[in-house]
Amino acid sequence: MNKKQAICPGSFDPITYGHLDIISRGASVFDEVIVVVANNQSKSSLFSVEERMNLIKETTKDIPNIKVDTCNGLLMDYIRTTDARVILRGLRAVSDFEYEMQITSINRKLDDSVETFFMMTNNQYSFLSSSIVKEVAKYHSPVSDLVPKIVEEALKEKYAK
Amino acid sequence: MNKKQAICPGSFDPITYGHLDIISRGASVFDEVIVVVANNQSKSSLFSVEERMNLIKETTKDIPNIKVDTCNGLLMDYIRTTDARVILRGLRAVSDFEYEMQITSINRKLDDSVETFFMMTNNQYSFLSSSIVKEVAKYHSPVSDLVPKIVEEALKEKYAK
Amino acid sequence: MNKKQAICPGSFDPITYGHLDIISRGASVFDEVIVVVANNQSKSSLFSVEERMNLIKETTKDIPNIKVDTCNGLLMDYIRTTDARVILRGLRAVSDFEYEMQITSINRKLDDSVETFFMMTNNQYSFLSSSIVKEVAKYHSPVSDLVPKIVEEALKEKYAK
Amino acid sequence: MNKKQAICPGSFDPITYGHLDIISRGASVFDEVIVVVANNQSKSSLFSVEERMNLIKETTKDIPNIKVDTCNGLLMDYIRTTDARVILRGLRAVSDFEYEMQITSINRKLDDSVETFFMMTNNQYSFLSSSIVKEVAKYHSPVSDLVPKIVEEALKEKYAK
Amino acid sequence: MNKKQAICPGSFDPITYGHLDIISRGASVFDEVIVVVANNQSKSSLFSVEERMNLIKETTKDIPNIKVDTCNGLLMDYIRTTDARVILRGLRAVSDFEYEMQITSINRKLDDSVETFFMMTNNQYSFLSSSIVKEVAKYHSPVSDLVPKIVEEALKEKYAK
Amino acid sequence: MNKKQAICPGSFDPITYGHLDIISRGASVFDEVIVVVANNQSKSSLFSVEERMNLIKETTKDIPNIKVDTCNGLLMDYIRTTDARVILRGLRAVSDFEYEMQITSINRKLDDSVETFFMMTNNQYSFLSSSIVKEVAKYHSPVSDLVPKIVEEALKEKYAK
Repeated sequence: MNKKQAICPGSFDPITYGHLDIISRGASVFDEVIVVVANNQSKSSLFSVEERMNLIKETTKDIPNIKVDTCNGLLMDYIRTTDARVILRGLRAVSDFEYEMQITSINRKLDDSVETFFMMTNNQYSFLSSSIVKEVAKYHSPVSDLVPKIVEEALKEKYAK
Repeated sequence: MNKKQAICPGSFDPITYGHLDIISRGASVFDEVIVVVANNQSKSSLFSVEERMNLIKETTKDIPNIKVDTCNGLLMDYIRTTDARVILRGLRAVSDFEYEMQITSINRKLDDSVETFFMMTNNQYSFLSSSIVKEVAKYHSPVSDLVPKIVEEALKEKYAK
Repeated sequence: MNKKQAICPGSFDPITYGHLDIISRGASVFDEVIVVVANNQSKSSLFSVEERMNLIKETTKDIPNIKVDTCNGLLMDYIRTTDARVILRGLRAVSDFEYEMQITSINRKLDDSVETFFMMTNNQYSFLSSSIVKEVAKYHSPVSDLVPKIVEEALKEKYAK
Repeated sequence: MNKKQAICPGSFDPITYGHLDIISRGASVFDEVIVVVANNQSKSSLFSVEERMNLIKETTKDIPNIKVDTCNGLLMDYIRTTDARVILRGLRAVSDFEYEMQITSINRKLDDSVETFFMMTNNQYSFLSSSIVKEVAKYHSPVSDLVPKIVEEALKEKYAK
Repeated sequence: MNKKQAICPGSFDPITYGHLDIISRGASVFDEVIVVVANNQSKSSLFSVEERMNLIKETTKDIPNIKVDTCNGLLMDYIRTTDARVILRGLRAVSDFEYEMQITSINRKLDDSVETFFMMTNNQYSFLSSSIVKEVAKYHSPVSDLVPKIVEEALKEKYAK
Repeated sequence: MNKKQAICPGSFDPITYGHLDIISRGASVFDEVIVVVANNQSKSSLFSVEERMNLIKETTKDIPNIKVDTCNGLLMDYIRTTDARVILRGLRAVSDFEYEMQITSINRKLDDSVETFFMMTNNQYSFLSSSIVKEVAKYHSPVSDLVPKIVEEALKEKYAK
């Protein structure tokens, strides 16, 4: 029996409790989960790729079978450099669902041997997104229910400037 | 590394090319996929549980890591009798999505150690359901694009009566 | 240039102002619109096929290029007996949309030379269905905004019994 | 300033923590909330109207501004017998949303002076429905996270038979 | 019995007949409705906050229990400065619905004592948005069915430049 | 019987197999289909209007009853300059559906004599959009399943720069 790897891609700008829920559930099923920060140059981000990777590493450090990496081009080109044949994605709402279906269809066209598994985000976090966290943090409202402590502090620092 | 099992539950009344697509994709990722025919007494079915199990066995006989079983009560009670910690479900449309989210939420309440993974049905079969196959077969129209040959014949026999 | 015919299928149990909106819009584009009452034996109906056809004939009698017919089996088998290559369907809501997509996909599998055109129901009638009309009429509440006078009277008669 | 009343209609077969969430939120805004059990003869129910009313009374007994009533016909005919000009409804998912929009449109046609306010069910209960509670209870699985203790016991009694 | 206030927040760039429908329905239920123009610096607007407030004041001047205000930060911080415990929002479509659910969830996290009530926009205006009004006005097409006369003139002036 | 014309509007930046599917299905029903490239100045495009028109002309050159044109303002103003009374639009997903309903409603307000017919995109292309084609082409991944050869080459040239 070979080692089962799964890729968990996203912008993670920054990582939230919603992301952490999906990542840790994935890590309980697969032998290794590689969290991949997309370096999408056409989307402006609050945190640099390095900052985002560090926040993920810090907040997942108690889960041994997690690796953090980054990807500059198409995800399917990145996957070819690994042994993973599975992409894990969280689903929150109908709008997520349709976008994800579109991405999955095109990914299958590019490489049909890779499967995408969707996981339902915990109801408690079904409203949560990095954008909404940033919107709240920008006005100095508390985000401690939404992101881990270290992310909360990183947000405070960004918006103090 | 332990053996990864996944449960693929459904009514399968009868199995279609859409189901087969999900089952075979699941079997390419997991070490074993158990296809579980729900014996839902409140839903009237065209085929008996035994007939449905036989049609699944016949149409999946070339995939070595598939087992076929049945379940009389709640799926979560059945899963407790196995080593599987993963449920696999196909998603076709928004209406599927909401129903599946509801079922997954209640299943998590019943046993949070079991994960549900949703897979996107191949675009080619995104419209396909057992009900629509039965509707077409009832009027003696061809269903050879929708179900395997052996299922087509079983449908012909049922509707010849 | 050949005559352009379109089929407008439905249960019409009974015809509403929403149906009439779609039928008359269709008749303004196509040379002939054939309104086809589905004789679906697995669905119980309030009005008989003959009653439903008569109510359609009465309420569309001022539109010269409309014919009313019935169909006992699959719609695609019926269409083969006509020169029409177009099916017209009204769309009200997302749930309509997904169901119609499923039906259209299967119809294309059965005969790819027939096109389905969806028309948006007038906003004013976007909530209207035969079922809701029957629900209101059953309790003797007024339905004069929802159906033509002759249909209102037919409903009164049914529910007087 | 006149007393603000709101109607909270439903089948409540039986009342769940999701219903309770909506009812108590409504009672914190309006001066009085009338919970109205629909006596819909075309829908078979597990509990009688009296049993359902009693379970609501028991589980809301600590909220002083709640009344429980029943309604045999159209809700809009019932409302005319009260001073309430507001209907309160919980929204969980897209499918709820479209159905509720349809009902609200027809209700406005019947009486435009009555407003319907939709409230979002707490995320924690966004998957919860009376049907799913009955499905779980039928197989003797625990429902204590889903309904109040007194409802759990009533369910046990029904399904013990 | 205390005075019931409700907040009706939005961009109102500019106010349309759809907004007016929601505001006036709200004013028929609550003792006071405060229309709050969001001063969202990250969204570029056609009209200044002052212009938008003036257009709202002009078009609602016949409804006595309406106040117009503005808000620079998070809505929940603004609400804390008032006695209102209710937010009123119009719902048009499924995409609205999901966005509103997300905002409502985060608002509940920030202050659970504030309720959000969703109202269905009149069918006649279910397609209407400030953006579509601006798109039509930009090309000098008539918008008199979509916005009050004074807004139409303000749009003409903006696009004459 | 007069000639039936239909307008098929879009950005076509660039034309994909999904667009071609809708255009050719439309051309099999109507006597003439005019493909209209919207010259939307507020949306930045990869290809100029002329380039987009040329790619459409090239890829539809075997269908005799197709004309290609451009439109600078509102589509409804353009249509008034033609004899066409029909707009054809492809529908892929729920998000498409709601946007199209909004556009159709406003178009009806502007000219109620023009009908919009929605066609379902072939399942095979239900995920396809010009944006996703550009995203894939940008990273030099193959797009030969998504667009005609001549479009593939035009994309290569653009992204080689």
